[in-house]
Amino acid sequence: MISGRCAACKYLRRRCPSDCIFFPYFPPNNPERFASVHRIYGASNVAKMLQQLPHHLRGEAADTLCYEAECRTQDCVYGCVKTISQLHQEINKAECQLAKTRAEIAFISSNGGQGRTTATSTSLPITSSTQL
Amino acid sequence: MISGRCAACKYLRRRCPSDCIFFPYFPPNNPERFASVHRIYGASNVAKMLQQLPHHLRGEAADTLCYEAECRTQDCVYGCVKTISQLHQEINKAECQLAKTRAEIAFISSNGGQGRTTATSTSLPITSSTQL
Repeated sequence: MISGRCAACKYLRRRCPSDCIFFPYFPPNNPERFASVHRIYGASNVAKMLQQLPHHLRGEAADTLCYEAECRTQDCVYGCVKTISQLHQEINKAECQLAKTRAEIAFISSNGGQGRTTATSTSLPITSSTQL
Repeated sequence: MISGRCAACKYLRRRCPSDCIFFPYFPPNNPERFASVHRIYGASNVAKMLQQLPHHLRGEAADTLCYEAECRTQDCVYGCVKTISQLHQEINKAECQLAKTRAEIAFISSNGGQGRTTATSTSLPITSSTQL
């Protein structure tokens, strides 16, 4: 029954057994999802990682493996570590912005509310470009 | 010359050729570094990923692959995606803190500097626990 095979078994051109480890997490309508993890980890490593987990955690593990594999495909050098670096930079910027804004509060307080309020008009350094 | 083998060739119990793809990035004094990427990606996939890159980028690629592999070993479900989620949470907290602090500036300004400055005494929501 070819139409009932999961994306992994279709990709690997093999029969999809009833207890296929990939079937619940790699549906046939999304072949790129499996191709991606296969390219980076290899099918046997993905199967091994999923088999080591209890059933209720396998879906999330498959999702995160796919995410990491897609990042690595897009950026062969840094993978999703690039996102982590970018987020650290954003946090550093936010820390600086917060410190600056707090200094502004102290300045305004000491000047009886007559201080400039530039901090309130400064745009947030945080973007949602790196959202998952 | 057994002592001259890289960590990968030692692990795989094979001769380390003079042009070994692993040699520059997996020194023999750090066997766990190779064991980690081998466990997650498999030696042949790591070799393939390094070979596809120009020489000057292979070191950083090996480092990021090791980082991701270590994260996956420590957290079999989420891997380094857990760090990304934590960083997003920290950024959201920082955004809230910044908005709160800016509201405080507006409040102080409108009250002629007589507003409470609780924001300045609030601890930063940002920790460095998730630094690389």
